[in-house]
Amino acid sequence: MPPAPPEKHRANPTGNDEFLLTPGPLTTSLSVKQAMLRDWGSRDAGFIALNRRIRDRLVEIAEGGGDYTCVPLQGSGTFVVEAMLGTLVPPTGRLLVLVNGAYGARMVKIMHTIGRDVVSLTSPEDRIPDLVALDRRLAAEPGISHVAAVHCETTSGILNPIEAIAAVVAHHGRSLLIDSMSAFGALPLDIGELGADAVAASANKCLEGVPGLGFAIVRRAALEAAAGNAHSLSLDLYDQWRAMESNGQWRFTPPTHVLAAFEQALIEHGAEGGVAGRHRRYTENCAILIDGMRKLGFETLLPDELQAPIIVTFKMPADPAFDFQMFYDRLAARGYVIYPGKLTVAPSFRIGCIGRLDPDDIRVAVAAIAETLRDMNVNECGAADAA
Amino acid sequence: MPPAPPEKHRANPTGNDEFLLTPGPLTTSLSVKQAMLRDWGSRDAGFIALNRRIRDRLVEIAEGGGDYTCVPLQGSGTFVVEAMLGTLVPPTGRLLVLVNGAYGARMVKIMHTIGRDVVSLTSPEDRIPDLVALDRRLAAEPGISHVAAVHCETTSGILNPIEAIAAVVAHHGRSLLIDSMSAFGALPLDIGELGADAVAASANKCLEGVPGLGFAIVRRAALEAAAGNAHSLSLDLYDQWRAMESNGQWRFTPPTHVLAAFEQALIEHGAEGGVAGRHRRYTENCAILIDGMRKLGFETLLPDELQAPIIVTFKMPADPAFDFQMFYDRLAARGYVIYPGKLTVAPSFRIGCIGRLDPDDIRVAVAAIAETLRDMNVNECGAADAA
Repeated sequence: MPPAPPEKHRANPTGNDEFLLTPGPLTTSLSVKQAMLRDWGSRDAGFIALNRRIRDRLVEIAEGGGDYTCVPLQGSGTFVVEAMLGTLVPPTGRLLVLVNGAYGARMVKIMHTIGRDVVSLTSPEDRIPDLVALDRRLAAEPGISHVAAVHCETTSGILNPIEAIAAVVAHHGRSLLIDSMSAFGALPLDIGELGADAVAASANKCLEGVPGLGFAIVRRAALEAAAGNAHSLSLDLYDQWRAMESNGQWRFTPPTHVLAAFEQALIEHGAEGGVAGRHRRYTENCAILIDGMRKLGFETLLPDELQAPIIVTFKMPADPAFDFQMFYDRLAARGYVIYPGKLTVAPSFRIGCIGRLDPDDIRVAVAAIAETLRDMNVNECGAADAA
Repeated sequence: MPPAPPEKHRANPTGNDEFLLTPGPLTTSLSVKQAMLRDWGSRDAGFIALNRRIRDRLVEIAEGGGDYTCVPLQGSGTFVVEAMLGTLVPPTGRLLVLVNGAYGARMVKIMHTIGRDVVSLTSPEDRIPDLVALDRRLAAEPGISHVAAVHCETTSGILNPIEAIAAVVAHHGRSLLIDSMSAFGALPLDIGELGADAVAASANKCLEGVPGLGFAIVRRAALEAAAGNAHSLSLDLYDQWRAMESNGQWRFTPPTHVLAAFEQALIEHGAEGGVAGRHRRYTENCAILIDGMRKLGFETLLPDELQAPIIVTFKMPADPAFDFQMFYDRLAARGYVIYPGKLTVAPSFRIGCIGRLDPDDIRVAVAAIAETLRDMNVNECGAADAA
């Protein structure tokens, strides 16, 4: 039987049995979860006001100003990404997707599934998109109406250079759609400055709400032009927006408890200093994690300058004593849930640094990893492809 | 200032500030809400097992047996209805929808939006579908591959005769798809006996979970034939099913807290005696509500034999002292949230009898309604069209 987790984690302040070192669902604060202990009537004035506050605050976090509005949507992050593409790329449009991981590839798959015109520009999973190639492609293909980019590609943890991408797209006068799912609220993003038409994100990543809700920050003018575009009734952001603007209510039953938790999460985000405060904590978490893991011999996939402070990909150790499932299970028994890899190119695993975790939690997690390795008789954590 | 609600409702056992006498989001038990005080990792073995138990139990409640499987889906009830139609009616098919309210009409709208062939057979909102007309229509139009029906049409509260509808559809060898959103778990339904291909429902109606999750009980053979049909990646029930069968995990982030609450709700549903027990309580709630309201002079839209024990439509009183918004607000201040009407034919309002409410709660609610009417100086609750 594995040893009991340290006392702190039995009675950890989030109310969890374990810490989720994942890209989501992630560890949320106890107060966020406690906000779900009430049933709200979805047509009630108090609930309508709660939604208004959430939408306004999200536009503020995106630095959106009056040109932008927030359209929330039931479901996972993929639901709102699909809704963004299906609503904003008209049936006569063509989308170029910058792909350097599974989430870029998923946008291509969505477009194929919904029967819209899509092309892609693919880079390796450990490289940022090729901006020169993007520039040339847009110059050569005037039929490309929209470009979609992933802000932080959770597949690897890479930070894509969203400002530089936006500049190239703007230079060619095309519309930019951003999947900022795992970055929104922790990585700076000024949607007006970027000139993007929309950014899609989720309640359950860096904003530290619970899962079940996505949202898009959309330029009003782009939404106004999008009536009738959508391939789906449920995923029609235009229709969702119009209905919500008309009486403050959702078209279809909202996840009321998830929304109540989300408002509490946004209050806590503000109390931490907003995007800057959250970025600071996650950056510290990430640095402590990488430093500690390197001291144990692990190698990161990415060089530090490409690493977003969201989730870190580690190469699988070559040591035959290292069995990932055993490592995962033993860490979970100690109270730490990590994440499998999603790379197509090399065996790896991932550890998230987002959610209600502070630097001390990360230090204790690294210590638990060290103990687990000792238990497993793993002595060498270097990757197979190391020198 | 309105008088304070009775003591019981200040500290009511559900943990709510008010009772939701609505078709959902509705009042849930405190223990259901408390199940959300934990963050689950979505790839964790415990969470995978929780999902397995939920899916198995839902097939059992539908009396599905081995020919059927349960496919859960993120989002509201409309999301899973759209997913059911988009996945199971192939692009070459044609759907006939039986319409006697807003939810039947919504299925027609979904089909138009997703670009599939649809026809409808419409009855007045206070009448059940015309089965003779259905029989003739199916005989005359062999191109109709599927029929969709609403079990309890929440627009009016009418109980549609699902067994008789199923018999006609089966006689003609067509596929039946049922929207049992507001009925599943409280009105008896034997999917195998009906021979339906699918039933769609939600965690947040008669099963008394929280909103954010729908599900479909689907005949395996129908799902197996549905690969590639869907108009949407997020709403593809085939893909969702295949992924879940392969490793027990969700394709896209599940609403983990909503699922944890749902399992607790299903445990409480079982403890109450399953469908029979819940039907008994709701039937008693409904009888007490209608009896009490009739004593106050209100008139129901439906004759008792068409009334489902889910939600009751009352005609708006003719008395000029009766202002619905004032009535709604004053009742809400007393701790009772009711529901506006959705009829197209006559002014009305609705009161739900589902959720964590027992006959005593309904009695106290009727007493609160009587006091509110006295405060408003409403003396006559008969409808304008009464004799």
